[in-house]
Amino acid sequence: MIRVYPLRKDYTDDQITAFPLQVVGHNAGEVFCIKPVTDSTRWERKQLYDHELEEIHPWYYRNWLVEDQILVEYAPGKKCGMYRFTYPAHAVHRILLSPVDKWVLNGNGEISGSSLYHGDTKVYLYGQFDSPYDGALTFKDGVVALKYAISYISVAAAKVSFEQELAGKGFAEIEETARAAWHRIMNQISVEGGTEAQRRAFFTALYRCHERMVNISEEGAYYSGFDKQVHADVRPFYVDDAAWDTYQAMHPLRMILHPHQEEDMLASYVRMYEQSGWMPQFPRLFGDHACMNGFHSTIIFLDAYRKGLHIADVEKAYEGMKKNALQATMLPWRNGRLTWLDEFYNHNGYYPALRPGEKEIIPEVDTFEKRQAVAVTLGHSYDDWALGKLAKELGHDSDALLFEKRARAYMNLWNAEKEFFMPKDEQHHWIDIDPGWDGGPGGRDYYDENNGWTYQWQVAFDIPGLIQLFGGRERFERKLDTLFHAELGRQRYQFWAKFPDATGLMGQFSMGNEPGFHIPYLYNYVGKGWKTQRMIRSLLDIWFKDNQFGIPGDEDGGGMSAFVVFSSIGFYPVTAGEPVYTIGSPVFSKVVVHLENGKDFTMVAHNCSAVNKYVQGVKMNGKERKDLFFTHEELVNGGTLELEMGDKPSHL
Amino acid sequence: MIRVYPLRKDYTDDQITAFPLQVVGHNAGEVFCIKPVTDSTRWERKQLYDHELEEIHPWYYRNWLVEDQILVEYAPGKKCGMYRFTYPAHAVHRILLSPVDKWVLNGNGEISGSSLYHGDTKVYLYGQFDSPYDGALTFKDGVVALKYAISYISVAAAKVSFEQELAGKGFAEIEETARAAWHRIMNQISVEGGTEAQRRAFFTALYRCHERMVNISEEGAYYSGFDKQVHADVRPFYVDDAAWDTYQAMHPLRMILHPHQEEDMLASYVRMYEQSGWMPQFPRLFGDHACMNGFHSTIIFLDAYRKGLHIADVEKAYEGMKKNALQATMLPWRNGRLTWLDEFYNHNGYYPALRPGEKEIIPEVDTFEKRQAVAVTLGHSYDDWALGKLAKELGHDSDALLFEKRARAYMNLWNAEKEFFMPKDEQHHWIDIDPGWDGGPGGRDYYDENNGWTYQWQVAFDIPGLIQLFGGRERFERKLDTLFHAELGRQRYQFWAKFPDATGLMGQFSMGNEPGFHIPYLYNYVGKGWKTQRMIRSLLDIWFKDNQFGIPGDEDGGGMSAFVVFSSIGFYPVTAGEPVYTIGSPVFSKVVVHLENGKDFTMVAHNCSAVNKYVQGVKMNGKERKDLFFTHEELVNGGTLELEMGDKPSHL
Repeated sequence: MIRVYPLRKDYTDDQITAFPLQVVGHNAGEVFCIKPVTDSTRWERKQLYDHELEEIHPWYYRNWLVEDQILVEYAPGKKCGMYRFTYPAHAVHRILLSPVDKWVLNGNGEISGSSLYHGDTKVYLYGQFDSPYDGALTFKDGVVALKYAISYISVAAAKVSFEQELAGKGFAEIEETARAAWHRIMNQISVEGGTEAQRRAFFTALYRCHERMVNISEEGAYYSGFDKQVHADVRPFYVDDAAWDTYQAMHPLRMILHPHQEEDMLASYVRMYEQSGWMPQFPRLFGDHACMNGFHSTIIFLDAYRKGLHIADVEKAYEGMKKNALQATMLPWRNGRLTWLDEFYNHNGYYPALRPGEKEIIPEVDTFEKRQAVAVTLGHSYDDWALGKLAKELGHDSDALLFEKRARAYMNLWNAEKEFFMPKDEQHHWIDIDPGWDGGPGGRDYYDENNGWTYQWQVAFDIPGLIQLFGGRERFERKLDTLFHAELGRQRYQFWAKFPDATGLMGQFSMGNEPGFHIPYLYNYVGKGWKTQRMIRSLLDIWFKDNQFGIPGDEDGGGMSAFVVFSSIGFYPVTAGEPVYTIGSPVFSKVVVHLENGKDFTMVAHNCSAVNKYVQGVKMNGKERKDLFFTHEELVNGGTLELEMGDKPSHL
Repeated sequence: MIRVYPLRKDYTDDQITAFPLQVVGHNAGEVFCIKPVTDSTRWERKQLYDHELEEIHPWYYRNWLVEDQILVEYAPGKKCGMYRFTYPAHAVHRILLSPVDKWVLNGNGEISGSSLYHGDTKVYLYGQFDSPYDGALTFKDGVVALKYAISYISVAAAKVSFEQELAGKGFAEIEETARAAWHRIMNQISVEGGTEAQRRAFFTALYRCHERMVNISEEGAYYSGFDKQVHADVRPFYVDDAAWDTYQAMHPLRMILHPHQEEDMLASYVRMYEQSGWMPQFPRLFGDHACMNGFHSTIIFLDAYRKGLHIADVEKAYEGMKKNALQATMLPWRNGRLTWLDEFYNHNGYYPALRPGEKEIIPEVDTFEKRQAVAVTLGHSYDDWALGKLAKELGHDSDALLFEKRARAYMNLWNAEKEFFMPKDEQHHWIDIDPGWDGGPGGRDYYDENNGWTYQWQVAFDIPGLIQLFGGRERFERKLDTLFHAELGRQRYQFWAKFPDATGLMGQFSMGNEPGFHIPYLYNYVGKGWKTQRMIRSLLDIWFKDNQFGIPGDEDGGGMSAFVVFSSIGFYPVTAGEPVYTIGSPVFSKVVVHLENGKDFTMVAHNCSAVNKYVQGVKMNGKERKDLFFTHEELVNGGTLELEMGDKPSHL
């Protein structure tokens, strides 16, 4: 069965393409389905349970339909793909088309169709079968090939892509083009050492980091869901990002590997702002999807700016983000103008919360997503910090002062007695909750998806300030220790019934959701790097294996895989927005990253092994250093980071 | 930190022993704790979070306490063990004892103690340190060793074990004795082929299959929790079984590998009956723990009888089981006399259920475990079937007729319209529930731990009868297909909040709980062996890896690991109580099982590989056969089973 998704990428140039049937299927958003069968079964009756995935690569896929004995092969192009079905000789060779889409078949093998995605976005398909068939789509030949391309503009535009990418090409040629493209990408990082399993897990993660954003430009034009228009533009237009998920590690990784592509993505953000009047939170094919809380494009733009990327119209970007910060509601999963809650925030520096059981009276609040009062305050503190820093970089000094002040909002919700960020009501009184349990599904009255144990650490932009709140380095360290060992206080299934996103648990720490990623690196900020080193190795070993368990939570557009790529190489960008990395414990003994500027960044870990996971010494470009930090500049200048590894903790 | 458990086994002769600190700890029932430390921290303040398990075998274990830099080593004996702590040279060398137990220390290095387990069972310890210490248990030497033994009779009895097993022996000698004992056990099965990971998973499972039952005899005497007396007896007395979990695969596996040990275990069951007046359900150290439903010793005894084991006093066993069947309540998690519900069952052939929301009026019903009305009916149908067959074997013909009739009770709850076993009320009316969801936590109003999708198949003793209920082989097969692909109808976390035991999900099939084990083999009974073969390979591959994810649900005393051992070798005892095995798909190309009778059973799978998982042909002792079944007699006579494997399904 072919499932054509509107935005599933399997090609390196970040072009849209179809993606074939998956073992672990998610079928949200599939728009076209095509099934090869050996009988005349009607669509609804044919359940293809009996398939076996025989081989899968980003550039080639082979599936065996056991009961029908049909071999299905696939090779992707940029905006297109080719299927090949090999039927058993003495069977009916038939294709079923999903009944819900508009298909047009003519006698000469051409097939076209259109389908509606998300209720508002048209997806078009143009394709050709390579062999004759009758009116019931029954074929004479035992091998049937289908080439097709998709478009968001028209069938004619799909046909243009078809002509450019597929016409006159055979399966092997299309596969080889895709293979070569992926090999270029995968060869950008070379590794030595580690186990085969670690290398597999690493390159699988690296592959996943190329899933989004997706370039939807088609030959000098693109359809934008942000104003529902087709635009002529030679610069690639990228959609499908999840800023809350990707600002921490995915965008920073791309700023290293593909800075020019990142620049195109940021330019897309600016165009989306121009087209819709708002800087998007989660730009999708159909427009902005106001997911989660905060709007962390602020952090991504600051990060890119400080890392020396060229942002096409940075003032326009700043204008859009400032408008978001001051004129848009902070309510989770909501776009739109300020509400009473936002006015309250602007005056008081925190989002006010309801007491347990108290009825919501603000009509704009999403009935499921709730106020997320603590999470909103922490998230927008980070946004305001980033805006303040960017304002300063751009010379908007009074803005800088305003946002610097706003960035300290997080302190208003620190409850020193509880040692948690806790909610307050409108009268500035603490609301006495159990931060590990209260707040309804996902703790959303106060936190979001994770509980207060995770939100305790959401001040990545001001770690010294956070350490101070905890009362010093030792208490900060103890609290980190406690986090990784704390009891849930109930059965795990009871906990997950309320916090289903808090997967990959170690104590109260969740490896399976983005707000946790930077936490294991925080030991580095209190002189206990060995605890970071041990924890990172342990987390990679437990949660990111090369097997069917895959990853411990939502991939979320590369967010989680970027954690794996960074951590396996041996460092991590704890504070997105600061051009600084902190060192963990690499699983490889040598890693070379070939940069777009022609230079190589090299990481060498002498004596690195499963046992030798503790950093004994650090050199950058041959010079010893006494801490576990280095800069983006050192990296992109082709620096060489040397680590001496050993089996006992050192005091670095 | 040493934790001494009352019944944790790490030695082959099924003797009790202490077990050291585990990575994945369960500390229920620990009775003594001892911690090596390098400072004067009080017990409560010292949390040993920072340990790293460096090496673990059944016979040796090494743990590194990172912060204290103490090396902890351990080697087990039968009822004893030896610890060795290596402290850093210039640190305090100190031992902390758990404050809750009664410790006696004298000046010459001896240590003894006693502790209460389960509120009613005394556990005694006797040990010796090998080096001098002061009153605060601070040692001069940098290496401190502790040898100790435990007993359920007295400190003096523990000292006898100590003298016999430990006195005069060094660490290496104790370790070597344990190693040799485990190697004897592990070498009982030799395998060729498969991957290293499959061999690791297999031998880990085989190890786990030796966890229980546990021989608690001490030099010609044992303490019995069934009458709270010490008995003189030279025959080993075994406790700690979970019949609901182990009758399917664990006892059958032991009947192949260790039939004499199994005979001792069954003799222990008979003694428990004599001592307590009831045949136990889950015999534990402290007496019977009436867990789950049914009392499947019936099935185990029948199975052993038919497989030619010598049951010491089979008439006495039968007497006890008949008494259980006719005079004991069937209520889950309850011992005791008949209730009104049991009388109802005896007259009407099913356990009556309450309608959703209906209030319980029978006082004996456990408020959490509920009636489990469908599960009870299915479980006792199996018990009655086994008792009927055993009665026949023993010549109790009128009993045989009675129990054969009772064994058909399951048919009373088959709802042909729904194709599920469904509950009925007292008036013989169906209760219209969603069998996949209703019944409260674990579906316990009607089912138990799993939902109706699993209980649909709980007629392993009459598969032809079950096929008939489904309306024939094709519908039976389709329903199996559906089971493995059916939607949960809700988010997984919502499902697990109600059915936390239904882990290892594939569709509505649960690999993580005992009632599921035989289900993938049922395709063999409708001529679709290839679907069994594919499913078994897939289940082993997904759920039983050689990594930290371990097993997908409760181990339950070897129940789950026995499934892995059987399935990896290539066959399974679908109907415990019938001396017959059905063939799946071995992961190994050759397996030899060395039997106690001196013969070898050999399984050869020609061309077996990850791809060649389908059985193309079967030979037993060189003779071709046309089905996928063979007998226990063929196995214990040293038969050779030859399978021809291929990559395409055959019609065997």
